[in-house]
Amino acid sequence: MNYNELALKMHKENKGKISVESKVALENKDDLSTAYTPGVAEPCRVIHKNKDAVYEYTSKGNMVAVVSDGTAVLGLGDIGAYAAIPVMEGKAVLFKSFAGIDAFPIVLNTKDTDEIVRTIKMIEPMFGGINLEDIAAPRCFEIEKRLNQELDIPVFHDDQHGTAIVVLAGLINGLKLANKRLDDIKVVINGAGSAGIAITRLLLTAGVKDIVLCDKNGAIFDGAEGLNEAQKKIAKVTNLKKQKGNLKDIMKNKDVFIGVSAPNIVTKEMVSSMNENAIVFAMANPVPEIMPEDAKEAGAFIVGTGRSDYPNQINNVLAFPGIFRGALDARAKQITENMKVKASFAIANVLNESELSVEKIIPNPFNKEVAIAVAEAVMKAAKEDGVACI
Amino acid sequence: MNYNELALKMHKENKGKISVESKVALENKDDLSTAYTPGVAEPCRVIHKNKDAVYEYTSKGNMVAVVSDGTAVLGLGDIGAYAAIPVMEGKAVLFKSFAGIDAFPIVLNTKDTDEIVRTIKMIEPMFGGINLEDIAAPRCFEIEKRLNQELDIPVFHDDQHGTAIVVLAGLINGLKLANKRLDDIKVVINGAGSAGIAITRLLLTAGVKDIVLCDKNGAIFDGAEGLNEAQKKIAKVTNLKKQKGNLKDIMKNKDVFIGVSAPNIVTKEMVSSMNENAIVFAMANPVPEIMPEDAKEAGAFIVGTGRSDYPNQINNVLAFPGIFRGALDARAKQITENMKVKASFAIANVLNESELSVEKIIPNPFNKEVAIAVAEAVMKAAKEDGVACI
Repeated sequence: MNYNELALKMHKENKGKISVESKVALENKDDLSTAYTPGVAEPCRVIHKNKDAVYEYTSKGNMVAVVSDGTAVLGLGDIGAYAAIPVMEGKAVLFKSFAGIDAFPIVLNTKDTDEIVRTIKMIEPMFGGINLEDIAAPRCFEIEKRLNQELDIPVFHDDQHGTAIVVLAGLINGLKLANKRLDDIKVVINGAGSAGIAITRLLLTAGVKDIVLCDKNGAIFDGAEGLNEAQKKIAKVTNLKKQKGNLKDIMKNKDVFIGVSAPNIVTKEMVSSMNENAIVFAMANPVPEIMPEDAKEAGAFIVGTGRSDYPNQINNVLAFPGIFRGALDARAKQITENMKVKASFAIANVLNESELSVEKIIPNPFNKEVAIAVAEAVMKAAKEDGVACI
Repeated sequence: MNYNELALKMHKENKGKISVESKVALENKDDLSTAYTPGVAEPCRVIHKNKDAVYEYTSKGNMVAVVSDGTAVLGLGDIGAYAAIPVMEGKAVLFKSFAGIDAFPIVLNTKDTDEIVRTIKMIEPMFGGINLEDIAAPRCFEIEKRLNQELDIPVFHDDQHGTAIVVLAGLINGLKLANKRLDDIKVVINGAGSAGIAITRLLLTAGVKDIVLCDKNGAIFDGAEGLNEAQKKIAKVTNLKKQKGNLKDIMKNKDVFIGVSAPNIVTKEMVSSMNENAIVFAMANPVPEIMPEDAKEAGAFIVGTGRSDYPNQINNVLAFPGIFRGALDARAKQITENMKVKASFAIANVLNESELSVEKIIPNPFNKEVAIAVAEAVMKAAKEDGVACI
């Protein structure tokens, strides 16, 4: 199917994908006097007296801003705010369909970190949560960090954490089949941008001990040259043996390969050099680091990609709707590492042992149970972590 | 009816009044691949090549931001961004119901003119128009002026111009019954804030020649002390005879009184001192400058207020939905004075001569013809003025 043509047609016919609708009737003078003046003054007065009432009397509590500066849109790169809108509207549609969340695109006429942070802080009152989307690294790290410090609503950069959560979910189930444990495995992650670093962090939180992160210059280690701030930080807690060398060297005797990098950079030979029951998540899009059939032929036990036309699709849509549903329902002030790990386990556990197979370690994106299970786990974790307000 | 209680109940039951909905189906893999990746990349590419295509492939062209800093909300004053949300959601509901426009509240965590301007410029890409709402004077003047200069989408401060347009509409019909002409009448406007000044400007554009603007210190004239910038400017083109004195002095021998000021400040005696067939628009809310029954008793020919429980309600809802509908449909870069005047005539002309009476100079707010007529007139005027892009 030619999705490009279909997409153009569909976007044009509908003039975009989202609308703002009224939840209340407005058919006569009484409706008008209740939804608008003079009646509307009363909820205003109540909120003025007690700010928290904004969650009771307005749409804030179910409203998420999908914020982008258009600098890292899909595989298209820095295409700017206007051209990013179709993706952000798409994200809003997914939020609604998968979790009943009202989401609104905020695309920004700036690439400046300070201005992005300031603008989001300015418009925060209407929103119960902030989903950062397609913002280039390393800017995205600072933006998320500062917003988390300065706002009391949850902030989540989906490109980082959404991917990480689903990768961990896949790994949890993959390891059941491979008969290995998170704290025993040796992992190589290729791609030290925002997704690679977020995956690394989440795996460490979940108990993985041996991770080597690579970029195009090879293994990253503490003291390596040319690292950015985020990479320097992660180098202190990964590759503790200070392995050096290129990806080919590093992949030898590893249990898990996770690629968030570039097409066709992994050979069959490299997969063959991995440990028995190797797990390969080759997520470069649309062309993975190695095609699944080649990885399988080279002996990989389980293969996952970002693609919907192969088994085991690592798809963010399994994570972000339930994450925000849970965070909003708990009125969480932030999304903790524990909440993310619990989300991964919730996704993994949607498949029971009898459903699991090397071709099915991750639930189908259209499985409606997933968002519900994730939301419950995230809400529970928010309460455990003391970040829930209800 | 107790609208306060009803409003509280309704806002709580619905958790606010707006939702963001999907305009497209999302039921299977093909839908997902069209609304989101990989298909969505194609409209992104098209817009990246040609920015104008954003109007074809996204929701921008029908999307209006309802922007407020919460400093002049209804009669409640400076209640802040959070407490302003119910009003802004209400406005969004009105935009949808009366003109099919998607409108989204942007309530701002700042009262600083520069920050407000900067923030709106940052978030502009998603919006086809900006409706400024409940922003205190004189800040609102500069914000609107700068945004009009710096953005190429229409910007409209409804508290100023919406009121002015409906006042002019009422005046046009009122003068037909009073058998007087716009360029002959003597007008006094009491209240020299944003609405009073906007009304003055629009009446001048429409051809009224003799206007005296008053505030609590009496008549404003060129050279008077204690005027703000906006008042100094308007003083140069009004009260050319430099009348001095308090409202009581100034009202003598006037044809029209327009009040956007304070309750009960006009006496029967003052109305009696006006010319024959006097028109009195007493719009202080909820208690007018003089109650309609008193004004009538004192000899007023036509009385209008802001209230829905008296005849001739001067209600903004007659103006802003059609104004934006027309401006969006013309893809107008701004809303000119001519577009506003034409909107007033369109509202007035919805009532034909046989429908007109001293108790009905303004159409009912629920008359669906009004927004359609206003939109057509505004679109035509935008083309005349060379500000339309289609």
